[in-house]
Amino acid sequence: MKNMIYIQSGGPTSVINSSLYGAIQEAKLHSSQIDHIYGSLYGVEGLIEDNIIDLGLEDEEQIELLKQTAGAILGTTRRKLPRNVHDPVYQKIIDNIEKHNIKYIFINGGNDSMDTCHKLSVLSQEMGLDLRVIGVPKTIDNDLAVTDHSLGFPSAAKFVINSVNSTAIDAGCYRSGKVYVVEIMGRNAGWLTASTDLLPDDTRPDLIYIPERPFDPNLFLEEVKEVYERKGYAIVAVSEGIEFSRKSMGNVRFDSFGHAQLGGIADELCEYVEDELNLPTRAVEFSLTQRAFPPLISKVDQDEAIYIGRMAVRSALEGETGKMIVIKRISDEPYVIEYRLEDVGNIANHESIIPESMMLDHTRMSESFRRYLRPLIRGEIEIKYKDGLALHASLKKIKVK
Amino acid sequence: MKNMIYIQSGGPTSVINSSLYGAIQEAKLHSSQIDHIYGSLYGVEGLIEDNIIDLGLEDEEQIELLKQTAGAILGTTRRKLPRNVHDPVYQKIIDNIEKHNIKYIFINGGNDSMDTCHKLSVLSQEMGLDLRVIGVPKTIDNDLAVTDHSLGFPSAAKFVINSVNSTAIDAGCYRSGKVYVVEIMGRNAGWLTASTDLLPDDTRPDLIYIPERPFDPNLFLEEVKEVYERKGYAIVAVSEGIEFSRKSMGNVRFDSFGHAQLGGIADELCEYVEDELNLPTRAVEFSLTQRAFPPLISKVDQDEAIYIGRMAVRSALEGETGKMIVIKRISDEPYVIEYRLEDVGNIANHESIIPESMMLDHTRMSESFRRYLRPLIRGEIEIKYKDGLALHASLKKIKVK
Repeated sequence: MKNMIYIQSGGPTSVINSSLYGAIQEAKLHSSQIDHIYGSLYGVEGLIEDNIIDLGLEDEEQIELLKQTAGAILGTTRRKLPRNVHDPVYQKIIDNIEKHNIKYIFINGGNDSMDTCHKLSVLSQEMGLDLRVIGVPKTIDNDLAVTDHSLGFPSAAKFVINSVNSTAIDAGCYRSGKVYVVEIMGRNAGWLTASTDLLPDDTRPDLIYIPERPFDPNLFLEEVKEVYERKGYAIVAVSEGIEFSRKSMGNVRFDSFGHAQLGGIADELCEYVEDELNLPTRAVEFSLTQRAFPPLISKVDQDEAIYIGRMAVRSALEGETGKMIVIKRISDEPYVIEYRLEDVGNIANHESIIPESMMLDHTRMSESFRRYLRPLIRGEIEIKYKDGLALHASLKKIKVK
Repeated sequence: MKNMIYIQSGGPTSVINSSLYGAIQEAKLHSSQIDHIYGSLYGVEGLIEDNIIDLGLEDEEQIELLKQTAGAILGTTRRKLPRNVHDPVYQKIIDNIEKHNIKYIFINGGNDSMDTCHKLSVLSQEMGLDLRVIGVPKTIDNDLAVTDHSLGFPSAAKFVINSVNSTAIDAGCYRSGKVYVVEIMGRNAGWLTASTDLLPDDTRPDLIYIPERPFDPNLFLEEVKEVYERKGYAIVAVSEGIEFSRKSMGNVRFDSFGHAQLGGIADELCEYVEDELNLPTRAVEFSLTQRAFPPLISKVDQDEAIYIGRMAVRSALEGETGKMIVIKRISDEPYVIEYRLEDVGNIANHESIIPESMMLDHTRMSESFRRYLRPLIRGEIEIKYKDGLALHASLKKIKVK
């Protein structure tokens, strides 16, 4: 009998723990093939350093709560594995795979995590290991290649859309208004920022700036001025990834994947508007809550996350490896999708950005974008609260010796 | 037959429109005494400038949606009325009161708005007008005097508590963590920031700084360092009103009430921690959503807001004037309160801050604070969504000629 291990990787989403829930529930149905359901703590670090827990020992009630638990319950990492399969880190991984009799490895993550998935799959082939490595897609940035959309993006979009709606209503309460610059996550892809285009006329951002289009500071000032003079206030949505900086570039920090650490663009643009246009401004940020805020989970997103968690386990048992599960859109209305397996090598390190056809111009999305997004944020889930606080799973995390 | 006018004033809350809903529903029950239900647009400005709508002409379905509508549906203002009752602005008010046959005036606001309430009440007496002026309390800052708590504070606290919970869970996912500085609204009173103390041990902020206590930057650094070394990350909640600034004071702007415009304290503290302790940081802000985000409305808060809106109308009809409705706490568990009328002159321009007895030390609250807060955030309301977007009321706003 062989064991499985589940790895969460990269930034959390609202449904990353829903996929884990699906995988655990499916694995329990196959107890004749899967002996133990292990979890790797802090992403692939747990597999490297033998920091592994037995998820089969957790209470069923807490497993149920995974569906409304923020963060990544197993812990996560941004560590990238080395290219060279003879690097000593791989020997540690192989040792732990053998020690714990692991055959099935599931990696739930985004672009960079699919790189880890790909490397473990290559390792398995080159070293002749009997492994099944399956990727479970996830990223609020929605920038994973091949798949129609990424798990977690719909719920993040739903949070951002509802938050911008509330912010725009609030902004409209005052007769002498401000320029509100709302900063939204998204490094190279503007999907999440663009999602605010789905709002109705009275609360839709007046201007949406995404990294797919070059950012022209002078044009930006002109556009903000025009809106402000017409409406008395302006709502501007900007992706954190647009290229604009008044700070010296020496201040930019990089994470271990070599990405610049971003943030603060709203503050910079507000200062710019105040200095150049002499208009009152307010920077708005949704911080970490935009990627994981259970009360705004999209039911479509959660259902898909659970399904893909289950399918990952079934696929591994059927002998698949080096694959990620992708979503193919069949129809927008009614919303129909298919799940398929795709070679993870075709996905890792690629990026999906918003295509031209989904943009109306450099500050607005087209109807095809709205048709794409509309079905994804539908449906609410019932959240369990205790004394006003949304409950979160608390695991015992019993280490495997 | 006489008419009533309803005024929303100051910053919006999640339940400011629930009080309006209550007042409208109650007024409709008394159609033999109240002919028209008017709304003043943009706070008292509408009454000054004859910018008044007939709320009786709105669809019942939209009136129902007021209970889940962010912002202040009638528009609001921060304008302060002059001290001198012979100022020409009062003549404009008197003209419009006479023109529209208004007898009942309701002002829904915080400290500064109760000042408006008080001045209109004084005006009424001095000029011998036949007016009934009643205040409906509201402010997320919870700093209104005399009342046990202010409408809107419980829902804001519920949003902040749940958001800090999600943020803390997210922060705990990484093995090498950061210092998270969460900035929460509150000018002179730390109620909203302190509310995060209600969280369970694993997500409660490690350090809570409120304006009631002097802020010592060196002690702050020591405390942050101690937590970071012990846990590997730190969650710090700070009120926007604490006194700390690395910026030149020349940058501070003031609103028309003479209050300094605040914000950006989290960014400043993060820079300070990076420079002095060389630790990675992340500033977290919940922006405008913390004061009005319908999905996190506290049912207790909404029920009280509706009740007080209704009671304001009944009190005016019974002949009361120059009063605000206050809440008296009878018991924490079970939660029992009474509603009373209090002279608005005893409330206007006073501020209620957190008493010493509710603080354990300068970074933690006492059990008496938690007993006070616990019942206020209980209960969820059912939000109506359409295609993933929480619905908001849309009024026709038909002007009264």
